[in-house]
Amino acid sequence: MAHVVIIGGGFGGLYAAKRLAGKDVRVTVIDRRNHHVFQPLLYQVATAGLSPGDIASPIRWILRRQKNVEVLLETVERIDPARRAIVFRGGAETAYDYLIVAAGATHAYFGHDDWRPHAPGLKTLEDALDIRSRVLGAFEAAERDAVLAGRPAALTFVIVGGGPTGVELAGALAEISKQTLAQDFRHFDPRAARILLLEAGPSILSAFPEPLRAAARHDLERLGVEVRTNTPVTRIGPHAVDAGGATIDASSVLWAAGVAASPLGATLGVPLDRAGRVLVNPDLTIAGHANVFVIGDLASLNGPDGKPYPGVAQVAMQMGAHAANNIVRATEGQPLRAFRYKNFGNMATIGRKSAIGDLPLAQLKGLPGWLFWLFVHILNLIGFRNRVLVMVQWAWAYLTYQRAVRLITSVDSSAE
Amino acid sequence: MAHVVIIGGGFGGLYAAKRLAGKDVRVTVIDRRNHHVFQPLLYQVATAGLSPGDIASPIRWILRRQKNVEVLLETVERIDPARRAIVFRGGAETAYDYLIVAAGATHAYFGHDDWRPHAPGLKTLEDALDIRSRVLGAFEAAERDAVLAGRPAALTFVIVGGGPTGVELAGALAEISKQTLAQDFRHFDPRAARILLLEAGPSILSAFPEPLRAAARHDLERLGVEVRTNTPVTRIGPHAVDAGGATIDASSVLWAAGVAASPLGATLGVPLDRAGRVLVNPDLTIAGHANVFVIGDLASLNGPDGKPYPGVAQVAMQMGAHAANNIVRATEGQPLRAFRYKNFGNMATIGRKSAIGDLPLAQLKGLPGWLFWLFVHILNLIGFRNRVLVMVQWAWAYLTYQRAVRLITSVDSSAE
Repeated sequence: MAHVVIIGGGFGGLYAAKRLAGKDVRVTVIDRRNHHVFQPLLYQVATAGLSPGDIASPIRWILRRQKNVEVLLETVERIDPARRAIVFRGGAETAYDYLIVAAGATHAYFGHDDWRPHAPGLKTLEDALDIRSRVLGAFEAAERDAVLAGRPAALTFVIVGGGPTGVELAGALAEISKQTLAQDFRHFDPRAARILLLEAGPSILSAFPEPLRAAARHDLERLGVEVRTNTPVTRIGPHAVDAGGATIDASSVLWAAGVAASPLGATLGVPLDRAGRVLVNPDLTIAGHANVFVIGDLASLNGPDGKPYPGVAQVAMQMGAHAANNIVRATEGQPLRAFRYKNFGNMATIGRKSAIGDLPLAQLKGLPGWLFWLFVHILNLIGFRNRVLVMVQWAWAYLTYQRAVRLITSVDSSAE
Repeated sequence: MAHVVIIGGGFGGLYAAKRLAGKDVRVTVIDRRNHHVFQPLLYQVATAGLSPGDIASPIRWILRRQKNVEVLLETVERIDPARRAIVFRGGAETAYDYLIVAAGATHAYFGHDDWRPHAPGLKTLEDALDIRSRVLGAFEAAERDAVLAGRPAALTFVIVGGGPTGVELAGALAEISKQTLAQDFRHFDPRAARILLLEAGPSILSAFPEPLRAAARHDLERLGVEVRTNTPVTRIGPHAVDAGGATIDASSVLWAAGVAASPLGATLGVPLDRAGRVLVNPDLTIAGHANVFVIGDLASLNGPDGKPYPGVAQVAMQMGAHAANNIVRATEGQPLRAFRYKNFGNMATIGRKSAIGDLPLAQLKGLPGWLFWLFVHILNLIGFRNRVLVMVQWAWAYLTYQRAVRLITSVDSSAE
């Protein structure tokens, strides 16, 4: 029986594994982490709306009923396509007949890795908890300064990058300062906190049509977010950002500006694009290795319009299912098929009662967009329990304007 | 208006603050962490049953409606009763008219601090997440060894200390290995994991009457836990425990054996007991300072039976309320009253459908004990939202035998 190895338990890897259920292959899913994260809601963990457990499930648990699948918690160091082998950190190896590489992407600081400690990005649960602690900690520090040092507290949050993640973080931070925390401090007014969204390009949410971009910007500004386009960041320090020719004093800086493909792609020994993504054939295989597929954020492939497919969950899911189908065809001696993407639409949320949706048949904004966004995200969460929990918490948050998971963890515990 | 400072946002500090609502005093609650933890359910976070956010709430949020209270996130370094001042780490100070010290306790390794890295204790959310990662990680490592090294996987969990926390951890670990994970691995049988509960004394749960102790031990053994009494631990290494004259190979060791009072007590300059707890007068003040109260796990006071009050939530809550009442009396020029403890009973849970309760009017065990335990714990959780969330998750866990929050976080992410 052919052995299919899938590297990565994100949307791409998971959908590939599921598509191989009941097929005449043996599947091993390998991930460095034991859990799949529902990335579209990660910003809600970062902004204290949901708990990590609400949006993440063990990969092993998701695939537990699929008897031809096993899951391995391991870190892949490199791939050796010539020997059809995967080498783990530490030197152990495993062999494959077919390989699906779905190792995804991480933050990129455009060559400025020294910005990383001052401006955390949002890709993992740990990132989200780090951001949560920084944001909530900034409000606590403002109160502390006001009490102990008698200094007036000035809070400024800077979000770098006006894509969907940056917009979602900015909207959520505005709601936290204007609504959630409005009554909780005695010595400064949390509502006076400034939230700046910096975008290097001419517009935020550039993947959306102009009317929706304008609606999103309008809703952000109504929430009190200062949106600055054409404002590239040139330096990030401990509590300062240089952007657009000026220096901004920042309590916290959050990074939502760029991603880089997993370094695992480079170990395949085939051409990469400028972002480090692996150039794949239309059937998702790589040059010279018809048994190796690369999918999701790590794959570089142009659509029929000549533009590369975007690094979004939908593309990863569809590529995962397609690579799995092609592997089944290969084991049956049939020719592989070219990938075709079916775009069901893009969404981004700004906050309470405000989201935009660019769908095949309609453009949604405001309350209808938000209701549709809620519906789609609840529907796509994995597991009945997570759906119920998220619904309960969203209902509570909607009614009370509160965010419940306001925990600052991982504080220095040396004083125990 | 008199300024009351409360150090610590645990049960004692919180109940003191609440009792001072609407009184003619100004209250400052100081804690190193921004959240109150519902300690009795901390073991459920450690064993993947609940999320941190389900059992913890921001202290600031709990007290948000109480206009005479402010909350400060700060680390107290020492207390200077002669100057009526509190000194924070870094040197800033705050003055008080009345002080309630409710700084609690932490783990104690009986002089063996080198055991700490190998045998984490359970006092904070971070502790609970650390234990969760170690326990789940041990199962993942067993599968990895079986696949990559071809070694048979042998899992042994050792819990040191047979008090309520040790019993709860042992019962939950047994359920995880025998039920939750039973179907999730392909290369070893999680049900074969050994769970050892080591107790130095002649009996587990020594605070309970004999019939309940026996019932608890019976239920633990039915779950597959090996209970070893009269088995003091003499050494803990990276993966080994010396106990009762033998060396036990252990995948993970958990510490539930001892607590030590907060070092803050020693800075008061008054006599301590052998465990480092502050000897308090019957009215909960300390010698020489009628305006300083010490309560909860940090206080040492004997009851009418000549035995010291135990370090449990109930004692802390009642002491907190009593100290607050005494402060109000002092501001009104009335004499202070002696503390009297009203014991509503002790409980410990072993697992599904099994708990013991030593109540004033009845002794409960088995299913009735468990139902009563559920009722009491849901009732005492702070906040409607937390109650609903915990109920939903317990219902789901009861129906499915699953534990949902099986996340291994804080993994080494250097390979990003």
